[in-house]
Amino acid sequence: MNTASGDNRFWFEDHVVGELFECASHEVSAEEITSFATQWDPQPWHIDEAAAKASVFGGLTACSAHIFSIYCITSQQWQNGKQMQALASLGFDELRMLEPVFAGDTLTCMSTVDSARVSSSKPDRGIIVYASELLNQRGEVAFAVKCATLMACDPAGRVD
Amino acid sequence: MNTASGDNRFWFEDHVVGELFECASHEVSAEEITSFATQWDPQPWHIDEAAAKASVFGGLTACSAHIFSIYCITSQQWQNGKQMQALASLGFDELRMLEPVFAGDTLTCMSTVDSARVSSSKPDRGIIVYASELLNQRGEVAFAVKCATLMACDPAGRVD
Repeated sequence: MNTASGDNRFWFEDHVVGELFECASHEVSAEEITSFATQWDPQPWHIDEAAAKASVFGGLTACSAHIFSIYCITSQQWQNGKQMQALASLGFDELRMLEPVFAGDTLTCMSTVDSARVSSSKPDRGIIVYASELLNQRGEVAFAVKCATLMACDPAGRVD
Repeated sequence: MNTASGDNRFWFEDHVVGELFECASHEVSAEEITSFATQWDPQPWHIDEAAAKASVFGGLTACSAHIFSIYCITSQQWQNGKQMQALASLGFDELRMLEPVFAGDTLTCMSTVDSARVSSSKPDRGIIVYASELLNQRGEVAFAVKCATLMACDPAGRVD
């Protein structure tokens, strides 16, 4: 769908409930897992290769904050080249860590438009809820979340 | 409340619904905001001081992934010296960014036991839901979340 403004900007009105967007991928290295967790979640199974091997997971796993950060960077890079005109993240719900994320995994973000409604108080914006997932290279859903995003309406107006 | 094991370990049975725990504090620097966001959420208002000054916030603000990471590191450091015997984070709900986090802010995590129930399938563990907040030095709640945590039961058993 093209925007009324005729460029890559993707406004509130451009969202269709149920539409799926492929976003970016991110490969997770052992060094990234340990350096992130050393600062933000220094549990042995995130920062110590030997302790991680002895754990139930059998290897280093990324911490929750790291996985959430990967979701943040990948979800904003849409492979269709469109630039969503987000104003703010309003909140996150149903955030689930469903599979461990290991060193060497590549996570790909897929986002679906879950709902869309115009703001009742400010008609120049609306609220889009995206249901997003991070899938690993085995096709498993490692992470899922719903994010309510405040999105600008197209200032050029709409003919439809 | 002391654990049956008589040490600092804090098990499922030690949790009392409604009890409040003061956790750690974290001071947020401008350098931390920009370096975190450069890697994980490179929006101009997170990484560019001039763009941030011109934004509605009037200054650099920490990105969502950074704030969530601060919650992760502060929430696990209880000021009473107890060590919670968490096995895994099961999921996060009602995660809200309620106030912007600026350079120079100090965030303090406060966690309340929201609910507690023994696992129906594995009686050696239970599920604790913590309701946590990050308060800034102005006393404003900048961030809130509920986290369901799988917690080990005390292997020493209980006399009560």
